[in-house]
This record gives sequence, C-alpha cells and structure tokens, in this order.
Amino acid sequence: MNNGELLASFKEHAARIDAVMEADLAIVQSPLLAQIIRHAIFQGGKRIRPLLTLLGASLAGTPPADTPRLAIAFEYLHAASLLHDDVIDHATLRRGAKTANTIWGMEPVILAGDYLHAHAMALASEVGGPAAMALIGRATAAMVESEFLQMHNASESIISEENYFSVLMGKTAALIAAACEAGIGHNQGTAEQRAALRTYGTNLGLAFQIVDDLLDYLGDPAKTGKAVGNDFQEGKMTLPLIKTMARANTADRETLIGLLKATPQERSRQLATAQAMMEKYQGFSLAKAQAESLLAEALAGLTIFGETAAQRPLAGLAHYVLSRDK
Amino acid sequence: MNNGELLASFKEHAARIDAVMEADLAIVQSPLLAQIIRHAIFQGGKRIRPLLTLLGASLAGTPPADTPRLAIAFEYLHAASLLHDDVIDHATLRRGAKTANTIWGMEPVILAGDYLHAHAMALASEVGGPAAMALIGRATAAMVESEFLQMHNASESIISEENYFSVLMGKTAALIAAACEAGIGHNQGTAEQRAALRTYGTNLGLAFQIVDDLLDYLGDPAKTGKAVGNDFQEGKMTLPLIKTMARANTADRETLIGLLKATPQERSRQLATAQAMMEKYQGFSLAKAQAESLLAEALAGLTIFGETAAQRPLAGLAHYVLSRDK
Repeated sequence: MNNGELLASFKEHAARIDAVMEADLAIVQSPLLAQIIRHAIFQGGKRIRPLLTLLGASLAGTPPADTPRLAIAFEYLHAASLLHDDVIDHATLRRGAKTANTIWGMEPVILAGDYLHAHAMALASEVGGPAAMALIGRATAAMVESEFLQMHNASESIISEENYFSVLMGKTAALIAAACEAGIGHNQGTAEQRAALRTYGTNLGLAFQIVDDLLDYLGDPAKTGKAVGNDFQEGKMTLPLIKTMARANTADRETLIGLLKATPQERSRQLATAQAMMEKYQGFSLAKAQAESLLAEALAGLTIFGETAAQRPLAGLAHYVLSRDK
Repeated sequence: MNNGELLASFKEHAARIDAVMEADLAIVQSPLLAQIIRHAIFQGGKRIRPLLTLLGASLAGTPPADTPRLAIAFEYLHAASLLHDDVIDHATLRRGAKTANTIWGMEPVILAGDYLHAHAMALASEVGGPAAMALIGRATAAMVESEFLQMHNASESIISEENYFSVLMGKTAALIAAACEAGIGHNQGTAEQRAALRTYGTNLGLAFQIVDDLLDYLGDPAKTGKAVGNDFQEGKMTLPLIKTMARANTADRETLIGLLKATPQERSRQLATAQAMMEKYQGFSLAKAQAESLLAEALAGLTIFGETAAQRPLAGLAHYVLSRDK
C-alpha cells in the first residue's frame, strides 16, 4: 500500500465510523441535544482515535463485528472533552466553524458534553466490558488531572520540558493509547500485544500533539482553521518555545521571558520577533526531531507483530501524523 | 426498630459511606481537584443514593463486601451533576455554603465534575460490571435529557403536570431507581426483585422531589439553607403551583399567570399573594397527598420480600423522605 492508498483506506474507515455514529446517535431524544452533539461530532474531525481502535484490533486477526461500536466511544470521549474545553476557554472557533458554546451558550453545551461522556462510557462497557472501561477510566482521570496541571502551569510564565510532557501525557496521549489498547484487547490480544499498542499509542499521541504545536506556528490558517501563533499570543509555552528558551543566550531569553509576561496584544505585535528567535535557536526543527523520534519509538513497539499487512496502516498513520498540514 | 433507631442506623451507614469515599478519593492527585471534590462531597448531603444501594443489596441477603464501593459511585454521580448544575445556574449557595463555582470559578469546577463523573462510572464498572454500568448509562442519559426538557419548559411560562413529572423522572427518579436496582443486582437479585427495587426507587425519587418542592415554600430557611419561595421567584412551576393553577378560578389563574410572566423582583414582592392562593386551592396539601400516594406505591412494590428485617429500613426511609425538614 502506498501513501495514497493508505489515506484512501483511512477515509473509508472514517466514513464507516461516521455511519456507525449516525446510527447510534438516533437514541438521543431532545432535538437541541441531538443538534449540539451532531455539531460536535460531524463538524470535521479526523477520527484518529476510533481508527486506531479498529487498526489495533486488526493486529490480532479479523476484529469482532461490534468493534466499530467500541471505537466510536473514543470519538465521543474526545468530542465531549472538546465541548467542555471550548466552554472553559470561551473559544469561539474550532476547525474553522463557530463553537457550540458560541451558538447555543454554555448551559446546553456543558450538558451535551456530559451526555456524550456518559454515553461513551456506557457504550464502552456494553461492548468492551470491564477491561475497556478500566482503560477509559484511567484515561479520563489522566485527562482531567492534566488539565489541572495545565492550569497550574498557566500561573507560571515559564514551564519545563518535563512539565510540558506531563501535560501532554494526560491531554492527548492517554486517550489515544487507550483507544489503541482497547482495540487489541477487544480482539483477545495478549498482555504483550496490549503493552505494544499502549506504547505505540502513547508515543503517537505525544508526537501528534507536538505536530499540533508546530502547526500553530507554521501551519496555513486556511487549512488549520486557526490563526498563526495563537499559542504564543495566549502566553502558552509549547515545545518549540521551550526548546528555544533552553538554548537562547541571556539577552534573547530575557526578551522572550518579557514577552511571556507581557499582554496578549504585545505578544501579538512581537510574534515575528519570537518566531525569528525560534528559527535562530532551532526551536522548530528540534521539536520536529523529537516528534520523529517519538514516532520511531511508537513503531519500534510494533515489531512484535512482524511485517504483517495489518501492521502497515499503523506505520502509515504515524507518518501521516508527522506530515499532516491540519 | 423505631424511628429514632432507624435514623441512627442511617447515620451509621452514612458514616461508613463517608469513610469509603475518603479512602477512595486518595487517588486524586491534583491538590486543587481534590479540594473541589471534597467540597462537593463532604459539604453536607444525606447519602440517600448510596444508602439505597446498600439497603437494596441487603434485601437479597448479606451483600458482597465490595457493595459500599458500588454504592459510592451513586453519590459521586449525584455530586458531579450538582457541580455542573451550579455552574450552569450560576448558583452561589448550596446547603447553606458557598458553591464550588463561587469559590474556584467555572473552569476547575466543570473539570472536577467531569472527573467525578468518569471516576464514578469506572468504579461502577469495576465493582458492578456491565449490569451496573447499563443502569448508570440509562440513568445519566435520562438526567441530561430531562435537563433539556426543563430548559424547554423554562421557555414556556406554564407547564403541565405531565411535563413536570417527565422532568422529575430524569432529574431525580432515574438515578435513585438505578441506585436501588444496582444494589440488589449486585447481590444476585432475581429479575422480579430488581423490578421491585426499580419501582420502589422511581416512586421514592418522585416523592423525594415533590417534598423538595414543598420545602421550597414551607421549609425553615435555617434548616433548608435556601430562601423561602426561591422556585416561585425564579418563575419555576412546581407541583403545588401546578395543582393550584388547575383548580383556581379565572381571576386567580390570571393573577398567577401574570406573576409568572413578571420580573423576579415582582414575584418576590408578591410571594405572599401566591402562597395564599396555593393554600386556598390546596396546592400544598394536594402535592403532599400525591407524594404520600407515590410512597405508598413505592412500598407496595416491596411486598414480595415479605415482612423481613431488611425490608423495614426501606419503609423507614420512605417515611423519613416524607417527614424531613431539610
């Protein structure tokens, strides 16, 4: 399978996942609730988590017929957390469209997040049993704990690389790892196979988030749907800036610290200065190299499956994560 | 067992439940998250849901040793929904104390609710398996659906008795019924026994909420921790008012409709007028009679267990619900 064929097969999977969600969401009764959930789910999204559950399950042979229903639980959990995140951040745009809270206000959107969250867990329990639920329980706890760590970080203007990765583990990697492991677990994978998928998912998740952080500075707003340098404007230290700070000379470091303590308006005006420094100290290329190294680790974990056909899409997905432009 | 002994035994159970929650919550890592959760859980609360899980389990013989851990999941779900409700309502007081959102703001409180919610479901799955999770999945879905129904109702100034009960089913009865049924289900109860507990819990939950609505008008603020007539001031139609509207003459009905469409300030000033009409048309006594009749139905469902010692606390709890003053 070449890259084009891989992407086409991912799109096919995504369309199947969408169809399963469409059918499943027929149980929602309130029209407004259904509308908010549909907005949260079908307004874009790459379906990476459910795709990983399906691909993970395939590594242990043909997956059980109900695997897609387990897979969508991970998309629901992701969507539920985005709904609440956008309320918390008062975010107005996501994937280039108005956020649910902008359209319907905070009240129904908090509740819609609760519904999706509970429904996802009920579904995971029904299809995947206590094993899947234990994975999800740990992942969701890690997600909230990392938000609290991030809130704590927000009160400091400078955070360490270690701290950055601690947040990432909970924010992105925990749920992706759980999606992978739940897939192979649902197909009677061995403990060794489950551990391999967990390693793959964790490293993929970390790399995924680093690429997100790089796209924030280097992406094309028309494709990402986000303004360039949004993270910097908000004073949020991500890996490119952390790498830069660690290597900058005293004067440049002081300039960056000053900017991090300045107003968002000031940071907006000085974005080009900051970006130039990040180029100068190779903040971007070092962050990219680290994402590559994490992806190499992700793939190394898969060697126990041999060069099977089922293994190739997971390798392809890893390369896609690195090269994506949105 | 007389009433005093029953109440003492409930308090003993509640203290045991508190101890199990204390031990369980040691897993929370972030100090702020732990603080918010502790505020939500240990700032009062009658522990009725976990108590019902324990009492329900006892009807089928000595419950498994891990039943209290299943029971606390229902207190967590209740607390999680109150955290989100208070954010949504911008509530400043609950049980006479500052709400979590007043102390810590919306952001960490939404997340703490998510954590408790997810943790409760993970715990229920671990202890009670897919059977308990299915019950909780249905109850939490019903809770959110009823909030959407309530939102819809809020846009109408007059709601029907049928509509009022539809909201109550999801808002209060669904989780209480699930707490009861999960208990006996965890102790290998038969389908008939589970249905009896579901009937008991549903009717108890409805009666519980009607008594809450009565206390809003008739309770002692020093005991309830809430201002008298709060529901009326907010323009919220509860059973005493619904019963009154159904029996009032045209002039009185018009007066009440006018007040429901007026400003909260105006309703505050006219509270005595409204209360006098509710007395005149027996709105309070009719609502109380309906709560009594629901409790009778709750107890009738328990006759299949015979006059056992284990059955008595559930009868006692029903009487307590009716006679409570806070």
